[in-house]
Amino acid sequence: MLIARVIGTAVSTMKDEKLEGRKLLVVQQTDEYGKASGKPFVAIDSVDAGVGDLVLTAAGSSARQTTVTKDRPVDAVIMAVIDSLEVEGKSTFRKS
Amino acid sequence: MLIARVIGTAVSTMKDEKLEGRKLLVVQQTDEYGKASGKPFVAIDSVDAGVGDLVLTAAGSSARQTTVTKDRPVDAVIMAVIDSLEVEGKSTFRKS
Amino acid sequence: MLIARVIGTAVSTMKDEKLEGRKLLVVQQTDEYGKASGKPFVAIDSVDAGVGDLVLTAAGSSARQTTVTKDRPVDAVIMAVIDSLEVEGKSTFRKS
Amino acid sequence: MLIARVIGTAVSTMKDEKLEGRKLLVVQQTDEYGKASGKPFVAIDSVDAGVGDLVLTAAGSSARQTTVTKDRPVDAVIMAVIDSLEVEGKSTFRKS
Amino acid sequence: MLIARVIGTAVSTMKDEKLEGRKLLVVQQTDEYGKASGKPFVAIDSVDAGVGDLVLTAAGSSARQTTVTKDRPVDAVIMAVIDSLEVEGKSTFRKS
Repeated sequence: MLIARVIGTAVSTMKDEKLEGRKLLVVQQTDEYGKASGKPFVAIDSVDAGVGDLVLTAAGSSARQTTVTKDRPVDAVIMAVIDSLEVEGKSTFRKS
Repeated sequence: MLIARVIGTAVSTMKDEKLEGRKLLVVQQTDEYGKASGKPFVAIDSVDAGVGDLVLTAAGSSARQTTVTKDRPVDAVIMAVIDSLEVEGKSTFRKS
Repeated sequence: MLIARVIGTAVSTMKDEKLEGRKLLVVQQTDEYGKASGKPFVAIDSVDAGVGDLVLTAAGSSARQTTVTKDRPVDAVIMAVIDSLEVEGKSTFRKS
Repeated sequence: MLIARVIGTAVSTMKDEKLEGRKLLVVQQTDEYGKASGKPFVAIDSVDAGVGDLVLTAAGSSARQTTVTKDRPVDAVIMAVIDSLEVEGKSTFRKS
Repeated sequence: MLIARVIGTAVSTMKDEKLEGRKLLVVQQTDEYGKASGKPFVAIDSVDAGVGDLVLTAAGSSARQTTVTKDRPVDAVIMAVIDSLEVEGKSTFRKS
């Protein structure tokens, strides 16, 4: 899973009918400190994540293994909100 | 899902029979402002997208979860046309 | 799908039995003008493509959705030969 | 499979219910000497790996082929702890 | 499929039980001349490949379509040993 930060939201009216009611969040991959870089992408939220949260995203067919994404044309899902990260014995991130 | 812009069309006569009647659009990944970069790729349209639209694309097996792509040899589908994007509290894209 | 050019052929005697009789083509990703760059890869041909053709390739499980690749250990298939590409209102490629 | 080093741990309370009780490890891809570089990612542990171990990770649908990850929304699993690597006739890594 | 060279071997005692008896080879992607670059990865051998061989590797779910990898948590398999490559009308590689 990628470590990513929720940086925004996407709105779409013309979309596959199986996406109705799904929350589209704009996320960006980060390092272990929560520092984001690279092109953002869009993931479906399955855990009530909000803008600013550090999250885990699962890609590909794995993104369709939650109840809100099953059998839907989505290739990225937020399946966890990160509370804390500890790397090399140090706390690198803690949810505020 | 990637944020991408539809930049053109592809025409193919010699193709897998399961692609008959499918619209092949040339798309290019963008950032949250709709600015495109990188090599373009081709996606099947499932939502009546047009050249110039900012869209979401799903890849891999997820690309086969729409009615127009099911069981077909395609690994990218346009499954939403983006109306607007809001990032870090600012509107970064709005469909004109 | 990637836009790619067929640049050569691969021969293999020691291979998975499910690859018997499959044509192994060496391809290289291109831009919308057919200009190739990056490391080449090998794809199974399902549409009678030839060296020099500009083609579309599908990857991953999608590569196994043609009759010649079904249930086989292949992760790239050529599923279309491109006749023409039109990008930003201009013809960028036309098969000669 | 990628060669990766376990560099830390992630804690999440708000997560998909199918992740309950799964150990989330932070890993980073390495070369054949165990030298890590690039952005870290998070993998589910299926083999009792610990921080500091050099491991193999499997991605995508392959990550769901262990008993602890089956049908769960995870796209990376640690499925082996590496004892040793030998490359070009030399021992490049040995577990201490 | 990627063109890759087998550069070594990996040994693992603590591993998913479904990997028992599988040969873990260290491989590195190459160009059409067999020149390797980039980070090595580990693939399961299904065709009796040896160190030094130029091979084809299949990734993702496609890596599980051989008899030795079916239903196992592996995302890369060697499914062919390359005898020769011909690119742009020239022989770029021939097995010695």
